[in-house]
Amino acid sequence: MIISCTKEEMLSKINIVLKAVASKTTMPIIECILITADNEGVRLTANNLELAIETSDMKNDVVIMEKGISALEAKMFLEIIRNLPDNNILIQTDDKNVTTIKSGKSEFKILSLPGEDFPKLPDVEKNIKYETKATVFKNMIKQTNFAVAIEETKPILTGELIEIKEDCLNIVAIDGFRVAFRKTDLINDNENISVVVPSKALIEISRILPDKSEEIISMYFTDNHALFEAEDFTVVSRLLEGEFFKYEQSFINEYTTAVEVSRQEFLNSVERATLISRDSKKNPVELSIEKEKIVITSNTEMGASYEEVLVDAEGDDLKIGFNPRYLIDALKAIDDEKINVKFMSPLSPCIIESVGEGNYKYLILPLRLKN
Amino acid sequence: MIISCTKEEMLSKINIVLKAVASKTTMPIIECILITADNEGVRLTANNLELAIETSDMKNDVVIMEKGISALEAKMFLEIIRNLPDNNILIQTDDKNVTTIKSGKSEFKILSLPGEDFPKLPDVEKNIKYETKATVFKNMIKQTNFAVAIEETKPILTGELIEIKEDCLNIVAIDGFRVAFRKTDLINDNENISVVVPSKALIEISRILPDKSEEIISMYFTDNHALFEAEDFTVVSRLLEGEFFKYEQSFINEYTTAVEVSRQEFLNSVERATLISRDSKKNPVELSIEKEKIVITSNTEMGASYEEVLVDAEGDDLKIGFNPRYLIDALKAIDDEKINVKFMSPLSPCIIESVGEGNYKYLILPLRLKN
Repeated sequence: MIISCTKEEMLSKINIVLKAVASKTTMPIIECILITADNEGVRLTANNLELAIETSDMKNDVVIMEKGISALEAKMFLEIIRNLPDNNILIQTDDKNVTTIKSGKSEFKILSLPGEDFPKLPDVEKNIKYETKATVFKNMIKQTNFAVAIEETKPILTGELIEIKEDCLNIVAIDGFRVAFRKTDLINDNENISVVVPSKALIEISRILPDKSEEIISMYFTDNHALFEAEDFTVVSRLLEGEFFKYEQSFINEYTTAVEVSRQEFLNSVERATLISRDSKKNPVELSIEKEKIVITSNTEMGASYEEVLVDAEGDDLKIGFNPRYLIDALKAIDDEKINVKFMSPLSPCIIESVGEGNYKYLILPLRLKN
Repeated sequence: MIISCTKEEMLSKINIVLKAVASKTTMPIIECILITADNEGVRLTANNLELAIETSDMKNDVVIMEKGISALEAKMFLEIIRNLPDNNILIQTDDKNVTTIKSGKSEFKILSLPGEDFPKLPDVEKNIKYETKATVFKNMIKQTNFAVAIEETKPILTGELIEIKEDCLNIVAIDGFRVAFRKTDLINDNENISVVVPSKALIEISRILPDKSEEIISMYFTDNHALFEAEDFTVVSRLLEGEFFKYEQSFINEYTTAVEVSRQEFLNSVERATLISRDSKKNPVELSIEKEKIVITSNTEMGASYEEVLVDAEGDDLKIGFNPRYLIDALKAIDDEKINVKFMSPLSPCIIESVGEGNYKYLILPLRLKN
């Protein structure tokens, strides 16, 4: 393989695939980035066997002098390319897998691995295409991802539910203490589907999706895999097996107390209440909801805090405790200035939702207050 | 103690003293910041017994309603102040050492420690005053500090030599493999002195000294302590005991090979040569000095690199090996575009100095090349 290209474009392609490179494995080949130079062009692939990312073909100033494939240890490849002195670079792999990288008066010779040994991308037949706006999809992931379970006691909850239903795309994360729900419209109507994609794959997609508002992301699903396609890349992830929690039944629409509150003021107050606590699980914040305000208090071995936030409340007065971390995560994930928070009782979850018609709902279980 | 002040100024004062707060000790009092409100004003002190920092008095909108002292756990104090909702804050410590911090509709009550238990600053008599420009002093520390010994086998080398000689201030760091030397003029002439100040204290001074070019730093020394005084703070550090290495005899002015080279090009090339090496101690870079260029090569188990840098050389051709890390540190610490590098033999140190009259010298021991 002999190709010449620009440092700039090669670097941006490496950054797209980088997070699908395995680290600390016993299989050196999956710690590599594969360069493919064929009739279609030059592109990079990384595949840690859970998640595979392939870039689109390079567009600018790329010349293939000899077709071929070559697998290069990812970290060293990145560092070499990043530090090359000149924007024009030449990469050549000989039949003994020695790769030479040249630029200006710099030359590196490194041992590469045979490209043939690099694991192929899983086959995903492109039968039914689901499409939505890339920026919306990117944000939906960020706005739900924090509620994914970290511990692997229930592996299915380490993923997010992607649900296509009634021409809407829903993304849902649940960790047993809270539910994060976001929805958006699909561009095309299509049949319903419900799959669970590992959180890591979605985080990567959200990271590499550009902020271009006109861009579309396409999705295809098989029984075992999801394929996401955007302008610059293709991502293939395996799916998680098992049944996802029936989240809809948690979002009941009854309440005895409801408040309309400034999201930012509520967030700041709860954040301050955590300052005198080392462990948010053990030290709930107490919300005391009155007619015109929420009083937020916290009492720990380190001291006490007191906060007031003005609200529009309806229904009964209520005292309820929460892990402040969970309130903070949800409040940070919302863009609206004003939000509604609904309560049933001190031992029932609260639901945070938009004041008008909205595309999000967050549910948080309370903590039992002492005395 | 009852004081009111602005969040902004309190935060900037906390940030000045913060690094002199002890962490993970068995003495809770030195994990605190002391607030003093007396006839002179309101100021903060931190003292980890090696290094003490005291701020100057607060200047803006500060009111003392009741004099007193109070010691507050530093991290929590910082976090509370940083997150307060309003710029006007009130701090009150009662006779049971409960401290109340109020701002807007937020109120915190935390347990403080008795200010009387806080360790006093070491007494440093201000007999002889040495003065130099604060920005110059700040930079001299940054430009030498990397060459301080990290391991404590020779404790004296974990400090930097501050030497006043012939109306100049010299700062020198040595770790056994290299010497970093910087000098500047003193504002006043004064008697010679030579002390070794712990590197950590100097790093802190360099961090908190502002970039205001007109500011002066004053220094006072006793047998055991150094006191540094600037507009915003006083720092007292203990001195290290023992005799510092006689660095001057290393900087001999003989050479058999000398090159004038672009610092940035040389630096970039050496940095690239380290990319195929995981351990810079085991993998020297080889400099091959010829009439018009330095060829920089590196050979490791990971591959090989080749670089050329154009130079003006005089004297004999020479091949010599270095730990690339040491070259990089020195080259990064210099601002000049062009530098001189002088060599005696493959087993003698090289000396990096300015092309004309200069205020710096860096010495680096070579590594023996294989074969």
